[in-house]
Amino acid sequence: STLFEPSGVITVTTDFGHRGPFVGTMKGVILSRFPSATIVDLTHEAYVHWPAEAGFWIARSYHYFPLGTVHLAVVDPGVGTDRNVLLAFGAGHAFLAPDNGLLAEAIDRSNADVFHLSGTIIDACRLEDVSATFHGRDIFAPLAAAIASGALSRDDLGEPTLDYIPSIFEPAERRGAQFVGVVITSDHFGNLITNVTREDLDGFKEPVVKAGGHDIDFGRTYGDVSPGDLIALINSFGVLEIARAEQNAAEFLGIGRGAPIRVVEKV
Amino acid sequence: STLFEPSGVITVTTDFGHRGPFVGTMKGVILSRFPSATIVDLTHEAYVHWPAEAGFWIARSYHYFPLGTVHLAVVDPGVGTDRNVLLAFGAGHAFLAPDNGLLAEAIDRSNADVFHLSGTIIDACRLEDVSATFHGRDIFAPLAAAIASGALSRDDLGEPTLDYIPSIFEPAERRGAQFVGVVITSDHFGNLITNVTREDLDGFKEPVVKAGGHDIDFGRTYGDVSPGDLIALINSFGVLEIARAEQNAAEFLGIGRGAPIRVVEKV
Amino acid sequence: STLFEPSGVITVTTDFGHRGPFVGTMKGVILSRFPSATIVDLTHEAYVHWPAEAGFWIARSYHYFPLGTVHLAVVDPGVGTDRNVLLAFGAGHAFLAPDNGLLAEAIDRSNADVFHLSGTIIDACRLEDVSATFHGRDIFAPLAAAIASGALSRDDLGEPTLDYIPSIFEPAERRGAQFVGVVITSDHFGNLITNVTREDLDGFKEPVVKAGGHDIDFGRTYGDVSPGDLIALINSFGVLEIARAEQNAAEFLGIGRGAPIRVVEKV
Repeated sequence: STLFEPSGVITVTTDFGHRGPFVGTMKGVILSRFPSATIVDLTHEAYVHWPAEAGFWIARSYHYFPLGTVHLAVVDPGVGTDRNVLLAFGAGHAFLAPDNGLLAEAIDRSNADVFHLSGTIIDACRLEDVSATFHGRDIFAPLAAAIASGALSRDDLGEPTLDYIPSIFEPAERRGAQFVGVVITSDHFGNLITNVTREDLDGFKEPVVKAGGHDIDFGRTYGDVSPGDLIALINSFGVLEIARAEQNAAEFLGIGRGAPIRVVEKV
Repeated sequence: STLFEPSGVITVTTDFGHRGPFVGTMKGVILSRFPSATIVDLTHEAYVHWPAEAGFWIARSYHYFPLGTVHLAVVDPGVGTDRNVLLAFGAGHAFLAPDNGLLAEAIDRSNADVFHLSGTIIDACRLEDVSATFHGRDIFAPLAAAIASGALSRDDLGEPTLDYIPSIFEPAERRGAQFVGVVITSDHFGNLITNVTREDLDGFKEPVVKAGGHDIDFGRTYGDVSPGDLIALINSFGVLEIARAEQNAAEFLGIGRGAPIRVVEKV
Repeated sequence: STLFEPSGVITVTTDFGHRGPFVGTMKGVILSRFPSATIVDLTHEAYVHWPAEAGFWIARSYHYFPLGTVHLAVVDPGVGTDRNVLLAFGAGHAFLAPDNGLLAEAIDRSNADVFHLSGTIIDACRLEDVSATFHGRDIFAPLAAAIASGALSRDDLGEPTLDYIPSIFEPAERRGAQFVGVVITSDHFGNLITNVTREDLDGFKEPVVKAGGHDIDFGRTYGDVSPGDLIALINSFGVLEIARAEQNAAEFLGIGRGAPIRVVEKV
């Protein structure tokens, strides 16, 4: 359902890192306008200038939050240029971000209705001193506060649109007997996280992953193999992950974001 | 006392770092089940795959939080394998973690009663879609919400157990006229934090620390010596710390976690 | 106005990083004394042992938070030595920090009244077990809780003082036809942030920035130039920033904190 009853929770996802007051001042603006907001950081270490990773995680994380959560994401290399502001409502959640492909997967997975926020709507939120380089603080934070507090609702938005930037993120694809995918990101442990889904493995009897010059068998969890051994598994977000038990797979294999991987039938 | 009246505060300690939505989705699950939770990060940069450091800090930090706080810790190389889930109540606090030694020191210092959470108890928390690789989100977060909200209390747990994994962390020990310890961790400043306690120094007239090829005199605080000078002190958590005033002792001495240190009488 | 009505919001700025329980235990102490506090991290990655950067950001960030916010900052190389504790009230906000220059700019920009917190006042906050090395947790956190909860107010403080440490931070200065400034810090993207203000540019017809061996033209926002091109702009905090579109200016130019920069008239 695209109905949205705000819970007061706002998640914040950015590529700002933790240096400087950037995320903090966004929260200050939210609290100035909606003092009872509950603000949760999703991550601020999304790859910089690349909306795909942030979008990948939001699309797979939003449903762990209460119904009525506003998911605000700012990975915005085009800040201050003439790009649209997107607001989407799907599966009982709201999604707010620049229109640069970041939200495409979340829109798809939540079956959301999508809106461009017009200048009129944005002006109604009484923005002050909008800078050219920090719309996260000056436009998106006030909008998130307005949506989470109920001051701005779907009824204010007119008709949904189908005009928004598609995902930069390519799904994995079958090529003959193989499934060919790519590493989207890695985590703090050096686990490699790919765009191959659980469903992509359906045709295989005993799949094996080829990555970084290694053939890697599937297992269920890290502890199924000995420390130092490689393992492929469907991770807790439903995609293929390559791990090295109690060690760092990314460093060991020497691969990372953008690296090709293949799933083949074991011979 | 092992009585526990929940305050609604939950601390979260992990080795997940800040990349990706891992900590964020744990908080989403908590808020979905207990909307008025107050969630505080203790740290997410505990050494990966090594429960000892996280346990060291929780054992020395818990009493700074309100009585009735639930301390949730997930450093869990055995996730998805057949290890127990521990819940302990001591000194008015609750502690929740995998049974891998992480909680042993906190249990000891808080004189806690310890329980294995049975499948029956865990099932009563209505978990959904438990993954094999992220019990922090799928099991521990729902349990923390249940304890902090009062839905799961000590009365539901039967008899306490003495059967849990001991600390991986060795106390410092006297060898003849010396006390021999080890560096447990370092902080952001490069201060080296050891397992030697204030009490371990009781027998010395004028102790001096031998570490990284240097003899280091004791002082009270960093500013007691000139910038660049080494100093040993009992830090704000009651253990021996080696610092270099306004500089990085770990880099200067070239030592870190696991490095041996000795306390001797000054000659 | 220096009137202060607490909103319950407390910002925390430190140079503690994210390793260990340092920031977490400060929050625990605040919540123990003021359970309904709303605590927001400004940053914990301020340059270590250098109060100037933390002060720079607080002076330019405080007004994004609700009126009645307490801004607590601990960059404190002199911890445990005989330095004063400063509390200032200005522009409806409160500022609390060691007296080491950190707050000087915020005091100036908020036109604040400044107080030394006497031992009598501090003692009235019922501190416990004050360590010599962690006043952030043992003194500043309890004081912040007292101010944010209204337990300690301006009326308890007597007469304001003009005796406090000035800023370590030098303003940019005109030298003949040039304005000479310095890089204060960089952000996660590698943008270089300087002490040259919007007003410093008033005399120029077409200013150009000389930095790291390059002549850099001004623009409005990053997307005004092609990816990889350098751009100078007045950023969202009102100071001169040098950026490289979708790339890292600090790495490209090989400069950082303390590097000299000059603004000249284009020839």
